[in-house]
Amino acid sequence: MKGTMKVAVMNGIGKMGYTEREIPTPKDNEVLVKLEYVGICGSDLHYYETGRIGDYIVKPPFVLGHEPGGTVVEVGKDVKHLKVGDRVALEPGKTCGHCEFCRRGEYNLCPDVVFFATPPVDGVFLEYVAHEADLCFKLPDNVDTMAGALIEPLAVGFHAANQGGAHAGQTALVFGSGCIGLVSMMALKAVGLSKVYVVDVMQKRLDKALELGATGVINAKEEDVLEVVKKLTDGHGMDLVIETAGLELTTRQAIYAAKKGANIVLVGYSQSGEMTLPMSLALDKELTFKTVFRYRHIYPMAIDTVASGKVNLKGIITNVFDFDDIQNAMDSSVHDKANIVKSIVKF
Amino acid sequence: MKGTMKVAVMNGIGKMGYTEREIPTPKDNEVLVKLEYVGICGSDLHYYETGRIGDYIVKPPFVLGHEPGGTVVEVGKDVKHLKVGDRVALEPGKTCGHCEFCRRGEYNLCPDVVFFATPPVDGVFLEYVAHEADLCFKLPDNVDTMAGALIEPLAVGFHAANQGGAHAGQTALVFGSGCIGLVSMMALKAVGLSKVYVVDVMQKRLDKALELGATGVINAKEEDVLEVVKKLTDGHGMDLVIETAGLELTTRQAIYAAKKGANIVLVGYSQSGEMTLPMSLALDKELTFKTVFRYRHIYPMAIDTVASGKVNLKGIITNVFDFDDIQNAMDSSVHDKANIVKSIVKF
Amino acid sequence: MKGTMKVAVMNGIGKMGYTEREIPTPKDNEVLVKLEYVGICGSDLHYYETGRIGDYIVKPPFVLGHEPGGTVVEVGKDVKHLKVGDRVALEPGKTCGHCEFCRRGEYNLCPDVVFFATPPVDGVFLEYVAHEADLCFKLPDNVDTMAGALIEPLAVGFHAANQGGAHAGQTALVFGSGCIGLVSMMALKAVGLSKVYVVDVMQKRLDKALELGATGVINAKEEDVLEVVKKLTDGHGMDLVIETAGLELTTRQAIYAAKKGANIVLVGYSQSGEMTLPMSLALDKELTFKTVFRYRHIYPMAIDTVASGKVNLKGIITNVFDFDDIQNAMDSSVHDKANIVKSIVKF
Amino acid sequence: MKGTMKVAVMNGIGKMGYTEREIPTPKDNEVLVKLEYVGICGSDLHYYETGRIGDYIVKPPFVLGHEPGGTVVEVGKDVKHLKVGDRVALEPGKTCGHCEFCRRGEYNLCPDVVFFATPPVDGVFLEYVAHEADLCFKLPDNVDTMAGALIEPLAVGFHAANQGGAHAGQTALVFGSGCIGLVSMMALKAVGLSKVYVVDVMQKRLDKALELGATGVINAKEEDVLEVVKKLTDGHGMDLVIETAGLELTTRQAIYAAKKGANIVLVGYSQSGEMTLPMSLALDKELTFKTVFRYRHIYPMAIDTVASGKVNLKGIITNVFDFDDIQNAMDSSVHDKANIVKSIVKF
Repeated sequence: MKGTMKVAVMNGIGKMGYTEREIPTPKDNEVLVKLEYVGICGSDLHYYETGRIGDYIVKPPFVLGHEPGGTVVEVGKDVKHLKVGDRVALEPGKTCGHCEFCRRGEYNLCPDVVFFATPPVDGVFLEYVAHEADLCFKLPDNVDTMAGALIEPLAVGFHAANQGGAHAGQTALVFGSGCIGLVSMMALKAVGLSKVYVVDVMQKRLDKALELGATGVINAKEEDVLEVVKKLTDGHGMDLVIETAGLELTTRQAIYAAKKGANIVLVGYSQSGEMTLPMSLALDKELTFKTVFRYRHIYPMAIDTVASGKVNLKGIITNVFDFDDIQNAMDSSVHDKANIVKSIVKF
Repeated sequence: MKGTMKVAVMNGIGKMGYTEREIPTPKDNEVLVKLEYVGICGSDLHYYETGRIGDYIVKPPFVLGHEPGGTVVEVGKDVKHLKVGDRVALEPGKTCGHCEFCRRGEYNLCPDVVFFATPPVDGVFLEYVAHEADLCFKLPDNVDTMAGALIEPLAVGFHAANQGGAHAGQTALVFGSGCIGLVSMMALKAVGLSKVYVVDVMQKRLDKALELGATGVINAKEEDVLEVVKKLTDGHGMDLVIETAGLELTTRQAIYAAKKGANIVLVGYSQSGEMTLPMSLALDKELTFKTVFRYRHIYPMAIDTVASGKVNLKGIITNVFDFDDIQNAMDSSVHDKANIVKSIVKF
Repeated sequence: MKGTMKVAVMNGIGKMGYTEREIPTPKDNEVLVKLEYVGICGSDLHYYETGRIGDYIVKPPFVLGHEPGGTVVEVGKDVKHLKVGDRVALEPGKTCGHCEFCRRGEYNLCPDVVFFATPPVDGVFLEYVAHEADLCFKLPDNVDTMAGALIEPLAVGFHAANQGGAHAGQTALVFGSGCIGLVSMMALKAVGLSKVYVVDVMQKRLDKALELGATGVINAKEEDVLEVVKKLTDGHGMDLVIETAGLELTTRQAIYAAKKGANIVLVGYSQSGEMTLPMSLALDKELTFKTVFRYRHIYPMAIDTVASGKVNLKGIITNVFDFDDIQNAMDSSVHDKANIVKSIVKF
Repeated sequence: MKGTMKVAVMNGIGKMGYTEREIPTPKDNEVLVKLEYVGICGSDLHYYETGRIGDYIVKPPFVLGHEPGGTVVEVGKDVKHLKVGDRVALEPGKTCGHCEFCRRGEYNLCPDVVFFATPPVDGVFLEYVAHEADLCFKLPDNVDTMAGALIEPLAVGFHAANQGGAHAGQTALVFGSGCIGLVSMMALKAVGLSKVYVVDVMQKRLDKALELGATGVINAKEEDVLEVVKKLTDGHGMDLVIETAGLELTTRQAIYAAKKGANIVLVGYSQSGEMTLPMSLALDKELTFKTVFRYRHIYPMAIDTVASGKVNLKGIITNVFDFDDIQNAMDSSVHDKANIVKSIVKF
């Protein structure tokens, strides 16, 4: 496809703008996708607000966005499983395929990964993207590209569930009821848990958790989390805890709330990077801490759970913004965290 | 509780009768349970028809029945988690607790297990049983003792799912749509699979499978199973196969139907004990064969999935017989396998 | 066996003494063991110095010692696998056998465990002990009771190796070259690792590590641990790290030293119980933290590795004290940590 | 490197010859290796004798040989971890890197693999080969290219050990004392087992097993295998069984010899492809059957175990043939199986 496309760029901290670029030509093993929805992730907002995450520093103009859903409009000659018109969810990280990590299946740890919207790699707040066909997963008829865009955060939730060894019969606790907390809760429900509780301090987010299937919620401003856990578990503690808030306080509570021998999954990044934790208690309980860095091997199963109705993925969206309204989309998402759980950009 | 109780006994091949026995007194770590429902298992029918299973030989009078649900009527003095009036499902095997297998958690392999209705240990086609309280699992309010009785076969289904490493995103095939095939299918659905297909040759049983949630069914009398599998999986084969029919034919089909690297779970016993199998093909595909002997660690999770509505356990029952009608219950179940999927005895 | 026996008791902080008690009579499932060697563990020394570990508080007179080896002198009538004259290593914790943890094989987490020398349960600095026969493991001809006594700490090392998923081909780092660091190193070597490095600040302990088979050692007083790790691993980091020092500093180093996706096993208890750790780095690397609380299912395999010469267990002993010299044994072990790696008491 | 090289070709069943070909030019991600040793595998002999293995049919002229060791003589421009002069072991299968199996780390199941000496892909009975650098593993100073060539069969042994979950403390039985049986036995020893027994009917092969470290051997012509197993295991059965003979008889014995709950690893291919097995007994014991198709992720660890002296890899070689003597090498290996355990070709 010849021609130019509209690209939203971050021109500096808090400054969005637009530019025109050539529509890319897909390589033989790639497809060209016309984007229809791209979710706004907390990391997009963090780059937008501060210009960096750890050692990753934005050099404007930079393209944010890594949660894309769209329709295939052109197909490279070696691509067999996709055709023009297929609606797809795009897994955003291209990996090398031959390093130690790729070879043993832990491709999310590939040191040479090229990942959308991770400096210096541009993201997908733009109209067209050429992407490896093997990273473009066809959506079934009953999953639209709006849901397709959100397969990316849902993948984090499923990876957290996998890392924690989640299984039917467990009672689980999720700290944080933001986007990642919600998808973690939904992932736990989808893999068979019937008792999943969510902790937050914002009631609106907890209401959303209940709406999306949480068994119960705990407003940590109003209740003593550990007392509630005791009651819910007859004093035994939670079989599984997923921490998505990234706070020392909640990570400490996770350790206290866990049953002996339990797994705690750490998903939330702390701002400072450091946490003071009661590690001897963790040893007394023989706890395991698993951590989450992105995800691996999740897209097909995540799409399957949405298609089969197990996960109400679009239910997490509270705000839809037009692509022409990207400045407002970013600003609103940054400034109204109490009301906006999840924003998505529509093309 | 003093007095006598009515006990149904197998007096010989094909001959049921009744006798009176003393109501047992629970030991300190036991409870006395008044039975309300006991399922009729294929193994009960097999003992009834032939007098033996392998080396286990019935010496009449013998009490059949090992799928019990009832209400606690007396509590041993060391029992803390149960009280009179609690409705319970009873796990039928008492294990030694200190052998190699018990110690490492594989208690279903305990060589000293005492298991209801496995000669010479009597079963529970009787009014009262004293049983280890730790093997009596309290049913929540929304699970009645009729469902409670069927936790036993459901446990086999969940153990099959566990042995196979079943997880969300997989496509699975279950051979056999009898009681164990159905509970395996329901267990797979409960742990997150959305695509579970069932094979049988009796259409009534396949209709039951569809009614209880199978994604699709294959009538092997009318369709070529392997051709259907190819279509369903784009030629890749099934991620997981559970074989409950106990036939050489279906076990061979399982090997052909499985995807490379897949797990096949063998649950069904072959009558002859021997099967001729295409083992080199299994090596080419690097398949794993897991087998199932009873179950372990399943009751709480199984009850949880019934309580949460994931498994429509009572839906497998096609026939309810009165305890006073036990001869008819056994005879009908033996002779009308096309129509009777699962019988249960009501006290 | 009738009569009395000599028992060493802790009469207060820093005060050992002796008393006479009745020789116990073994129950039907027990054996009576005449003790020949009992190791002195760091926890014994900690109780001796401070009177407590966490919530476990010594009430004198209290019997320390939980690393016993001896010879069977009397056998309960239900015991089949042992006879008078058998030399045995004694696993010190009797567990309930029916709680959730025992049933699933994680018996080290049993809340009702009765463990030697953990207040208020007396230990084995005494001449005879009656113990569950299933916890007494027969030593082969080429393993004497001095080595038998040290199976207990070796079990901690093997449990650490198991928790870490140690396997041939890995490069591992052990922080701490005290008794637990050394047995961890030896366990790693025994399960097939050929590259195991040990970090400490006391050269004598590092020399001991080299003597017992460490591939190399790092004296953290003289070298930059992380620089050495970089060189040893071409910048990739360690596949597995076991932390036995219980320090925040070394636990932090463990996180920096680990390869992406690696397991860190925490064995050492911190005195304060709290540690400040770079948790965001742990997430970036998707590390797993496993912890160790005692051990499970280790004795037979540990004895096997000693018998087959893989582990030079007696090599960790630096000092042998006579049972009559127990005050000196305790005092020396407390005050001369630079020279005494491991003490053992001989009866 | 310009010029031609000598290539040994199979010109028909039982007919070897030589031809000249251009020395290949390595691609950017490849190295050119001057071969020094190539092992002769049972599959080479099978192609030589019969012209086919299953659906793989030789079309002459065809190059056999897939167990290569040699020295790097030219390096593609993208290769960083190798340089001219490095001695290497070559993993013979190039995989696609992006299929389902490759992505999840099970690259040995890649349907698009290109594997030396598997028709129509030529093997390495030739002087130079250009091969993916990531599949060329550098040998340490104390491992020569003769041992390097045998890393390939050793990899099968380690994959068998891995598939079986082999670990220290187990007692294992290996059926077959040919090359694959021997490397399986050595792999089991290397990962920590101290009790590994080998069964065969040829005493010379059993003598070789003892020479290379087997704990004991069973000559099935002279002893009743199952009786010996009973004695060796106090009637409990083997913790792990590896079957490399590919016979129905030995596979049946494996099922009888295994302990309840044990893993049986099937490595040997049966000629007919079919076996009649006592499957109900397998269910009674709740056995697991794992199978082996080539290997994955083994080369670095296998090289490590040879370098550290755990595996006496060159000890399995009974006959060294000169590359100029290839017809004799093949014929001798085919006709003198009782005396020739493992042949290797020297360049």
